[in-house]
Amino acid sequence: MTLTIYGDRISGNCLKVKWVADRVGMPWRWVDVDVLKGETRTPDFLRLNPAGQVPLVVLEDGRTLAQSNAIMLYLAEGSDLIPADAFDRARMFEWMFWEQYTHEPAIAVRRFHKAYLNKPDDEIDPALMVRGRAALARMQAALSAPGCAGWLAGDRASLADLALVAYTRVAHEGGFDLAEYPAVQAWVARVEATLPVRDFDRS
Amino acid sequence: MTLTIYGDRISGNCLKVKWVADRVGMPWRWVDVDVLKGETRTPDFLRLNPAGQVPLVVLEDGRTLAQSNAIMLYLAEGSDLIPADAFDRARMFEWMFWEQYTHEPAIAVRRFHKAYLNKPDDEIDPALMVRGRAALARMQAALSAPGCAGWLAGDRASLADLALVAYTRVAHEGGFDLAEYPAVQAWVARVEATLPVRDFDRS
Repeated sequence: MTLTIYGDRISGNCLKVKWVADRVGMPWRWVDVDVLKGETRTPDFLRLNPAGQVPLVVLEDGRTLAQSNAIMLYLAEGSDLIPADAFDRARMFEWMFWEQYTHEPAIAVRRFHKAYLNKPDDEIDPALMVRGRAALARMQAALSAPGCAGWLAGDRASLADLALVAYTRVAHEGGFDLAEYPAVQAWVARVEATLPVRDFDRS
Repeated sequence: MTLTIYGDRISGNCLKVKWVADRVGMPWRWVDVDVLKGETRTPDFLRLNPAGQVPLVVLEDGRTLAQSNAIMLYLAEGSDLIPADAFDRARMFEWMFWEQYTHEPAIAVRRFHKAYLNKPDDEIDPALMVRGRAALARMQAALSAPGCAGWLAGDRASLADLALVAYTRVAHEGGFDLAEYPAVQAWVARVEATLPVRDFDRS
């Protein structure tokens, strides 16, 4: 089957879906939806996803799925991106929910305000920097803890790493300095090396 | 094994864990952690969960897990709370991530400010009411759509229903009127009827 991905190329949440589809060999076609132009709020798009968010995927039978991490779980089922060990899998879920609850609402949102809405720093809610730095510090602690194999859950790259790298790798666009978090910086490079690199241009 | 649950009884996120443990027959002991008294921010608690949040569970071997929805997935594995069909399971995940990203940060947060911090309405961010009402409207639409079997994913209660009922059932404490969302109100009663009722007093 071919997956149809409605997404915005500036969105880490949308790239997650592309990465997993490429990694598991699922063909896809990409439909650009421009968040800045309000294209996630049109009546046509809201019929596809009442939550008004990208990414949104349409399966070949017409059924739709939303929420980046839920789509990743659907696509990755049976692959080594989901740990076989029950506890490692639980840890993967823990990081994925933390990503959406704590990391993304600080780091991705600050990046969007700074790099895409072009707001000056003093017009951006200062809590976003505080929370984003706390999130990066938590990742630094986890990735430099004794016994950490270099990945967030288990001993290889999992969906937890893909979910969290999506906005961590562009955190500098939100004004965060990854050099302060060296274990995170090394982990970003490590995860990026596992990512498929099919260009949009070849799609 | 016996699960140790660190939680606050006023927290829907913590009750989720108790409900699933009871439902799958996992014995537990409850350790009260008072969020209002700052007990999730003490050095001892932060050693257990660096994210400084409840619920947090400790397995018998000393390993810890955080994030309510991740803990539910761990405990419910192999039970009928997780749909066997891959697409129904994906839909369950979609609702669970939406709950943490969109529903909880509006409805649970407004309830906390109003009912536990006792803030007057005009001191509560008005966006919380707008976002909470939009979340309830989205659930109303899903639960009254043709083909909906009365549950959020598949044809029986799943973790999606348990995750979302946790704060929907107490939304009135946050100033939301469920009578405006009759399909949601009926669904709350339906889900509550599936919940185990082991009292804390008997723990």
